[in-house]
Amino acid sequence: MHMSHRISAFQCSPIRRLSPYARDAVNRGIKVYHLNIGQPDIKTPRQVIEAVHNYDESIIAYGNSEGRQELREALPDYYAKYGLNVDAEDILITTGGSEALQFAFMTLCDPYDEIIIPEPYYTNVSSFAHSAMVDLVPVTSTMEESFSLPDISEFEKRISRKTGAILLCSPNNPTGYVYTKDELLQLLNLCKQYDIFLIVDEVYREFCYDGKEFTSVLSFEEFSDRVICVDSFSKRYSMCGARIGALVSKNKEVLENALKLSQARLCPPDIEQVAALAALNTDDSYLREVTIEYEKRRDFIVDALQKIDGVKVSNPKGAFYLVAELPVDDAESFATFMLRDFDLNEETVMLAPCEDFYVTKGLGHRQVRIAYVLNTDDLKRAVACIEAGLAAYQSTHR
Amino acid sequence: MHMSHRISAFQCSPIRRLSPYARDAVNRGIKVYHLNIGQPDIKTPRQVIEAVHNYDESIIAYGNSEGRQELREALPDYYAKYGLNVDAEDILITTGGSEALQFAFMTLCDPYDEIIIPEPYYTNVSSFAHSAMVDLVPVTSTMEESFSLPDISEFEKRISRKTGAILLCSPNNPTGYVYTKDELLQLLNLCKQYDIFLIVDEVYREFCYDGKEFTSVLSFEEFSDRVICVDSFSKRYSMCGARIGALVSKNKEVLENALKLSQARLCPPDIEQVAALAALNTDDSYLREVTIEYEKRRDFIVDALQKIDGVKVSNPKGAFYLVAELPVDDAESFATFMLRDFDLNEETVMLAPCEDFYVTKGLGHRQVRIAYVLNTDDLKRAVACIEAGLAAYQSTHR
Repeated sequence: MHMSHRISAFQCSPIRRLSPYARDAVNRGIKVYHLNIGQPDIKTPRQVIEAVHNYDESIIAYGNSEGRQELREALPDYYAKYGLNVDAEDILITTGGSEALQFAFMTLCDPYDEIIIPEPYYTNVSSFAHSAMVDLVPVTSTMEESFSLPDISEFEKRISRKTGAILLCSPNNPTGYVYTKDELLQLLNLCKQYDIFLIVDEVYREFCYDGKEFTSVLSFEEFSDRVICVDSFSKRYSMCGARIGALVSKNKEVLENALKLSQARLCPPDIEQVAALAALNTDDSYLREVTIEYEKRRDFIVDALQKIDGVKVSNPKGAFYLVAELPVDDAESFATFMLRDFDLNEETVMLAPCEDFYVTKGLGHRQVRIAYVLNTDDLKRAVACIEAGLAAYQSTHR
Repeated sequence: MHMSHRISAFQCSPIRRLSPYARDAVNRGIKVYHLNIGQPDIKTPRQVIEAVHNYDESIIAYGNSEGRQELREALPDYYAKYGLNVDAEDILITTGGSEALQFAFMTLCDPYDEIIIPEPYYTNVSSFAHSAMVDLVPVTSTMEESFSLPDISEFEKRISRKTGAILLCSPNNPTGYVYTKDELLQLLNLCKQYDIFLIVDEVYREFCYDGKEFTSVLSFEEFSDRVICVDSFSKRYSMCGARIGALVSKNKEVLENALKLSQARLCPPDIEQVAALAALNTDDSYLREVTIEYEKRRDFIVDALQKIDGVKVSNPKGAFYLVAELPVDDAESFATFMLRDFDLNEETVMLAPCEDFYVTKGLGHRQVRIAYVLNTDDLKRAVACIEAGLAAYQSTHR
């Protein structure tokens, strides 16, 4: 029967391939430390849950396609805290940052258009690109350079008449790199020169460490007509399951066009928007404490991993991920081994192999992304598993 | 700057064009009866709201991409009430029926593939088709035939090697027609002969009147390998804003492929799924009473509209829509007039012009879709507005 060819371009994600092994491990009574997915263990702010409990509609009705007006109107105050000038009408509420990315691709790009992206990148972007029939053109960043922005000439040489935008994630998933003001300015100047957009996914905005200042792409007002910011409530307020994000831009045409896509799917989920509105009232201390906690975890895990022979670690200054290069032939093979063949006192870890975080074939096959979304006690045990697992793997995979 | 050409193919919906006029009317103190959108005024079942109020997670976390397992496992009992044999693993929970349609298109069709669809059809399907770069091939149904299924030969002659599926909505939006067992069987036999799929959107499944039996496409087990059912909690339980639907199929390849798309956007909204699970426990009396209420409204409005000189009305046996042909030159012009230039004792109506419910240019330009989602008192006043409005329009538009 007629099935689309393009759907086969959607790779079964490595996490999907590993999931049966994880399930089997659990069924064998093994405790699996999940370092593979950015699902925070931090509690959602209490008033968010309370807002859900106080949801006072008697009909869960369709809302506006662009999102609940009160939510759009409340967000500018959030951005203003960071000195960012955003108005309600610059904001389209989306069903997660995922949908904002999809809308950006569809709005800017025709089929076979291109988006330039540093790799490694957030692997799901490939799926959005496939859906939109957009080609991702990679610019490879390296661990040696802390996954900082490659030379701007590497971006310039990849620009073609098919280029719709450059896409960045800062703070970065999976590397933890936080792009500097200067790096953003280089990109913006390039985008201006070639009349293309810069899209920046800033869903980890608050999570910056070592006193590092975060520079939002929204702060460059002189470039605002070519800037799209992808945002989300998921990580900030540990409400990933709510699926509430935003597409933010001062480019009216972008928003009008994205709105057409919004209208097609009618509206974002209503109850979750009420929850998101409450999240904006979260005391600043919540985010400060969460950031301190993640920084503590980052300190621990970078230190602990670097002590393992042969392991190299990116130098994450933000988000809650790092890329680790392991002394193995193949990271997915190792990740499978950890779930299927190994345990340390009936514990093991699940890791995310990085091969699918690269467009360029052959890269990342010895790397894993680690999400340090567990408390430090669990991280300690997880690292112990990794260390013992590496030794066991190496002894059987000479 | 580089904006996609394809986004311009997304028509600004006529409802969007009319919205500013509706807003202005409200600002002038005019009460607008909304007959333009299928947003029920029926209260969401109490236990659904209670389930929201009792949401007991401390972290609103990512769930499974295929949906909460307990929701997938509870749905088979719902289908079993209709004698339909559906298992949990045949079900993918989606973010509304909208997403199920999008997934079906992307899974079955490559760009420039075709889907055959009776027109008039649910206008947003055009947007999903555009997104997937799928061409809708219309088969025109007519008011004279109560918008019943056109002759099967009309479908057969439109099948090409690019055809992925035939798409139906039953009970139908916008016509209210309920396809018979025989009509479905004709389509299924055709689909089998040409090895294509039949997708049926059954989101209005319970809303059948005049004692009419509803035949679900899921009842044809011998064709189950080529059947996809699109479902939703929105209309059934008056929870349109929850955005919880389902893609149901016994074709494993369809589900595996649609799952890849699910994984890209991570998961459906979590709190709303908890609400949906509670909805399944709604006493059968709720749906019976709601159906009786809609039938009453259907009776009233068909009768009242038919009394207006020059108005023809489809003969809706299900859903909560009808198509009315009006004695006007242009339905959108009339709909605009009703909001901008007319009121009856400071009341008016908002209607949905049908032109965008057709692929074929020139059709439906004198038709409106009316959603009888208001109580009969309001419907009475709304019809009075339509009657007086038509007279006023005709006097100024000779």
